[in-house]
Amino acid sequence: MKNMIGIFDSGIGGLTVVKQVFKYLPEYEIIYLGDTGRFPYSTKPLENKINFSLQDAEFLIKQDAKILIIACNTITSFAGQKIRKKSSIPVFDVVSSGAYGASKITKNNRVGLIGSRDTINSDIYKLYLKNINPEIKLFPRAAQLFIYLVEENYIDYPETTQIVKNYLEPFKKDNIDTLVLGCTHFPYLKKEIKKAVGKRINLIDPAEELVLQLKEYLNNHTKTENKLARGRNHKFFVSGDVDNFQKSAKKIFSIDLKNVSRLVWDNEN
Amino acid sequence: MKNMIGIFDSGIGGLTVVKQVFKYLPEYEIIYLGDTGRFPYSTKPLENKINFSLQDAEFLIKQDAKILIIACNTITSFAGQKIRKKSSIPVFDVVSSGAYGASKITKNNRVGLIGSRDTINSDIYKLYLKNINPEIKLFPRAAQLFIYLVEENYIDYPETTQIVKNYLEPFKKDNIDTLVLGCTHFPYLKKEIKKAVGKRINLIDPAEELVLQLKEYLNNHTKTENKLARGRNHKFFVSGDVDNFQKSAKKIFSIDLKNVSRLVWDNEN
Repeated sequence: MKNMIGIFDSGIGGLTVVKQVFKYLPEYEIIYLGDTGRFPYSTKPLENKINFSLQDAEFLIKQDAKILIIACNTITSFAGQKIRKKSSIPVFDVVSSGAYGASKITKNNRVGLIGSRDTINSDIYKLYLKNINPEIKLFPRAAQLFIYLVEENYIDYPETTQIVKNYLEPFKKDNIDTLVLGCTHFPYLKKEIKKAVGKRINLIDPAEELVLQLKEYLNNHTKTENKLARGRNHKFFVSGDVDNFQKSAKKIFSIDLKNVSRLVWDNEN
Repeated sequence: MKNMIGIFDSGIGGLTVVKQVFKYLPEYEIIYLGDTGRFPYSTKPLENKINFSLQDAEFLIKQDAKILIIACNTITSFAGQKIRKKSSIPVFDVVSSGAYGASKITKNNRVGLIGSRDTINSDIYKLYLKNINPEIKLFPRAAQLFIYLVEENYIDYPETTQIVKNYLEPFKKDNIDTLVLGCTHFPYLKKEIKKAVGKRINLIDPAEELVLQLKEYLNNHTKTENKLARGRNHKFFVSGDVDNFQKSAKKIFSIDLKNVSRLVWDNEN
């Protein structure tokens, strides 16, 4: 029996959370599921994407995850509460962590948010922030193209800097003091984003916030912490092409992934 | 019984072929399948994407298509031959048409090609061109980011012009006289592409070539032509979200789609 930290996403973006775990909690073993065979969830009808997400969580719990991390803002938006209800283990998600991180650091209670179209349309950050501090005013903006620029590794180009600037320009008049990078791909554009919004704006990386909160949680829950598997035998599962996943992980996230297996869903044709 | 022209793609890109049909063959009724629920095929293992494509073709034939159009370069690359073998009706595909169109117009037998990463890696254009004219030398380059720029409708920006220029710069030293736009999204960047490669280069839009060839075919096969349904009751099926599809069709392709139904695959969960 292995008591691992389970992390999942519909694709490869969740690897940014993996990188933060490797950085802040390097002693623990993780199991990752990237449901790349059904990526992107965004084009699927709502009932399907909820089912997919519940299946993902269930798979990791069956594989003996003892902590569950939803490493995708969009999945959290439509399935976060449902997964929490169904899971008997602690569940962490990037939206809660991102919202919490922003609420702690903002001084003027004016917080910007960029994310995928789905995350922005879902209003999930607004909902979470309202629960934490109803005084905070959120300024959300979709920045779907940023995801593709990262996926294509088209980062160190003046055009990218300019595109980021164009998308973030409207934040200037909002007088925000904090900006949440509400998509796991966005930390890879941190330099460009900082340049666009100015240095005085705090950037919140929900993946980093999440792992720091998990670290605190483990400090306070030594019984759970003691049970967790230690070591480097991390396991990766993808429902799509394995080779593709390894190559993109290397190219985009500079992670060399060994031990990647193909997961075949029961109802796959 | 309706004898329609059947057109399919894994997503929305095939609508560029639909637009060409509306332009050059406006009297005929079409049936379109966008397998958006399983888009993109590119991340799926090969056996799955082949099966998906065969299912797509079969669905249209069962719906009484009398002509079949594979409106996607990538699908043609891995399933074109298999679909032809299994189908008893005439099959047209964008790669054959694009290759044929290029072979007719090139004077110096040096032809450039841009496409999705999958299309380029498949070498399908090389294979088809070799069959048509082994003298033609092909210069292929992946331009995946172009697809996303079109999907995000990020077109009329100087950055887009510059990105297109950067990707196409290497063609300058190849001395091509013809460039095939080997992805259904690319005609939407025609202006930028023309600017980047220069006016003397012929641009081949495979969707347009295909429909012109189909027109010629129908002129020469009056028995088939006579059977085809006339009218404006076009039918659209998508396996993903209907509303999403209609909105994107409107935004990207400026087509107002009525009569869009959701197709639920048997084995869908």
